[in-house]
Amino acid sequence: MNGAQALIRTLAACGVDVCFTNPGTSEMHFVAALDDVPEVRGVLGLFEGVVTGAADGYARVAGKPAATLLHLGPCLANGWANLHNARRWFTPVVNIVGDHATHHKRFDAPLESDIEALAGALKGWVRVSATSEQLADDAADAVAAATAGRGQVATLVLPADVSWSDARGPAEPRTAPASSARDGNQIDEIADALRRGEPTGLLVGGRVVAGEDGLIAAGRVAAAASAKLLCETFPARLARGAGLPAVERLAYLGELAEWQLAGLRHLVVVDTTAPVSFFAYPGKPGELTPDGCTVHVLGGDGVDPTAALQALAEALGAPADIDRAAAARPDAPTGELTAESMAAAIGHLLPEGAIVSDEGNTSGLFVPGATAGCARHDWLTLTGGSIGQGMPVATGAGVAAQASGDGRKVVNLQADGSALYTIQSLWTQAREGLDVTTVILNNRSYAILNMELARVGATEPGPTALSMLDLGRPDLDFCALATGMGVSAERATTADEFTAAFERALASDGPALVEAILPDTL
Amino acid sequence: MNGAQALIRTLAACGVDVCFTNPGTSEMHFVAALDDVPEVRGVLGLFEGVVTGAADGYARVAGKPAATLLHLGPCLANGWANLHNARRWFTPVVNIVGDHATHHKRFDAPLESDIEALAGALKGWVRVSATSEQLADDAADAVAAATAGRGQVATLVLPADVSWSDARGPAEPRTAPASSARDGNQIDEIADALRRGEPTGLLVGGRVVAGEDGLIAAGRVAAAASAKLLCETFPARLARGAGLPAVERLAYLGELAEWQLAGLRHLVVVDTTAPVSFFAYPGKPGELTPDGCTVHVLGGDGVDPTAALQALAEALGAPADIDRAAAARPDAPTGELTAESMAAAIGHLLPEGAIVSDEGNTSGLFVPGATAGCARHDWLTLTGGSIGQGMPVATGAGVAAQASGDGRKVVNLQADGSALYTIQSLWTQAREGLDVTTVILNNRSYAILNMELARVGATEPGPTALSMLDLGRPDLDFCALATGMGVSAERATTADEFTAAFERALASDGPALVEAILPDTL
Repeated sequence: MNGAQALIRTLAACGVDVCFTNPGTSEMHFVAALDDVPEVRGVLGLFEGVVTGAADGYARVAGKPAATLLHLGPCLANGWANLHNARRWFTPVVNIVGDHATHHKRFDAPLESDIEALAGALKGWVRVSATSEQLADDAADAVAAATAGRGQVATLVLPADVSWSDARGPAEPRTAPASSARDGNQIDEIADALRRGEPTGLLVGGRVVAGEDGLIAAGRVAAAASAKLLCETFPARLARGAGLPAVERLAYLGELAEWQLAGLRHLVVVDTTAPVSFFAYPGKPGELTPDGCTVHVLGGDGVDPTAALQALAEALGAPADIDRAAAARPDAPTGELTAESMAAAIGHLLPEGAIVSDEGNTSGLFVPGATAGCARHDWLTLTGGSIGQGMPVATGAGVAAQASGDGRKVVNLQADGSALYTIQSLWTQAREGLDVTTVILNNRSYAILNMELARVGATEPGPTALSMLDLGRPDLDFCALATGMGVSAERATTADEFTAAFERALASDGPALVEAILPDTL
Repeated sequence: MNGAQALIRTLAACGVDVCFTNPGTSEMHFVAALDDVPEVRGVLGLFEGVVTGAADGYARVAGKPAATLLHLGPCLANGWANLHNARRWFTPVVNIVGDHATHHKRFDAPLESDIEALAGALKGWVRVSATSEQLADDAADAVAAATAGRGQVATLVLPADVSWSDARGPAEPRTAPASSARDGNQIDEIADALRRGEPTGLLVGGRVVAGEDGLIAAGRVAAAASAKLLCETFPARLARGAGLPAVERLAYLGELAEWQLAGLRHLVVVDTTAPVSFFAYPGKPGELTPDGCTVHVLGGDGVDPTAALQALAEALGAPADIDRAAAARPDAPTGELTAESMAAAIGHLLPEGAIVSDEGNTSGLFVPGATAGCARHDWLTLTGGSIGQGMPVATGAGVAAQASGDGRKVVNLQADGSALYTIQSLWTQAREGLDVTTVILNNRSYAILNMELARVGATEPGPTALSMLDLGRPDLDFCALATGMGVSAERATTADEFTAAFERALASDGPALVEAILPDTL
């Protein structure tokens, strides 16, 4: 058994059953070993941003990490942006990066680069596997590191000779550390503060909003404390729909977020961070918590945030029963296709159990509202702010849904500009037969940047500046792009066309794309 | 005048007249300032790998650096692979990376990341501009750093508030340091060694092979010393064609390179490095210089390598006149479309002055031979080994050719697998009306990896391994992809079709694409 075989058997033993790959020469023994360990499914991506984003999407839906396989430093760099997105909201990823053989490093061959510096900048766990004998243990440690605490990106650098030399055999999975007890004092202090009856907000995120238990616990605390219940702006996974407590997401625009938070004297923050502005703007604040508002952090390292919320609910004598979102869907829209009518069509048709990968950006503004009363579904957002995540995350979510066999459909709401970063995702969706419906929100511009141009104070932009934010000249034809990658596609220019096309796409079992031609302003 | 305006005026004063951009919110003041300084042309790319690779291609053809404009750490990462390619063969790039405002860094907003670590891993010049008053000087220093010596990637990190705050005005260009004198002792020593009449090789690269003077100097030394004249495997720019001394490129495959170097007792290396294997293979050597062969390095920091070769030629009493490549073109091919007949068609038609961006990989094997006797042209190769460079380099080369007004045409020989990393290049070619003809070498596989799989010793790959190297299921339709980005395209399945389509593409003024459907083996 060589190192690569021991590595992949260890991944399988640790519950990692998918490896998203874009390999090169130094990873050929790993690729060859995939045939020896059919428990680990190899899924090819044509670009590394697809590979890493798919690992993120897979983990968000499957609740366990996937592995990646990348080729040397430049290919880690190609996948780095979506690893940034994963790490910013604690998605576990076992990130395997092949390197030159240990004895080849000193030659400074053309593809030599500082892999550890690139991996280190992800602020996760990094180890260079030194020998084939240690590789299996390194792999088990990497899986344990990826899944420790809230989760992180664990990068294992795999020199080619460590992969091809003889190994002892696979390693055993590591035992997860027991979660520490809740901090009773912390809960008592927060409960005392909330009992004062002052204006209070409860800002939840992370694991709390990923499932029903957390949302109910949050809803109970909010009800007991008459607190405004808010969700972080970009949750990794938000469970929502009819029958679940509804949470209002904090707005992306700092001005709106300040309005949401105005007047609060206490803000309880659970499994997320106190709100800050996404970007800086001249003369505007970075911290969004109002002056005079005390931030209380509930939970911490090793604490189950949902259990902490449940304990707080009990301490406050919260009711067992709370308001849930009522079932309600918009009527099928007719007439012009706009951001609003498109949203109505999606709300009209979104299937029960849908997994929505949302990188709709500006034109997607109305979709959350229009789907709030749909049957239960999950919402995956752009956690780290680096665009080009939506399509890969949908791809990984599609692999997880397909593997689970529960028939869940993936809907990817994808802004046009962002789509072009990782459009290669469509090919993997076609190859793997994934049940992903992509909706391209085509407004022919980086509309969000036109807005940001004004927000930073550049109020009279000239033609050159505007052309840098314009995606016309030439117009992108997403139907042609999809067809070129083997995904069937339709273009919709009216609300009726969109509704019909979206319905047909959902009815098909494999991937499909609907290009919605939208106005360039909301 | 704000910082951004002072910065762009400084770039213009330093001779930087193009900025390839993919901006975000933190770069909006830079974008707005482009209208104030029309001397600097903004060119939008839809993905950062296009932006950085275009800056590389521009510099190789224009002989001066372009600027980039990237958005924060994740977008630097997206462009990192082509910056790696640029830095490995010393192409100057003024790499401007926007950052959060200085007072916003402490909030650890979602897009916060370690830009300096990413930039530092490029092993070039890195500076964070601290104030608007210093920004113009920083910009002048960055241009000087990019163009110092052989050239490098100079990264200037630009916080948003440094961009938007008041500045004094532009800075003056820095004076380039005088190049140091040649090392006479070094030349005498090498001349003495070569006079012994032992088997000798002359391996040249970098600036030597970029133009006629260097090639003639190398040819004269080779003639005087009866030396085998070799060119580095992947030169940034190789001048070639009828009337120029022909140089044989060192092979990518270590086995072939060893054969080229076999028996040499002296290897004179000029503006490149002693040959090493691109990758490691079990049981094969990394250094390719034969045992018992002495490596002599001619030149060094601050030395003009062509002047050093000219001095060596004089020291050896070299003839003034040497052999030049004769004018010769293959006949137009007919019959099956193969790698060989495609190469013949290209050799039959390649226009005088063409700039060839070559990422043809395996299926491109025969093109250099078929074009050796074409009218004079330049050949740009994959310098750093990270695929996805060919299309962006062609794009930047097209901008340089268009700006020069000399009517030079760009031909991009592009392997199918590699094309998918930066296919967004086509859109920029269409928007800017660049005269680039892309030839997609579509063999529906990562053919080079199938070869590498055998070379690393995985001789009986299973179906999963093979599927990871296979680009079929579904087949990519490059004509559809090109059309989707606004570039007209034709598919060719016979040699006659290819010749006709390539001729039509060359005859058009704007971008065009020809998809050559090739066998999956050579």
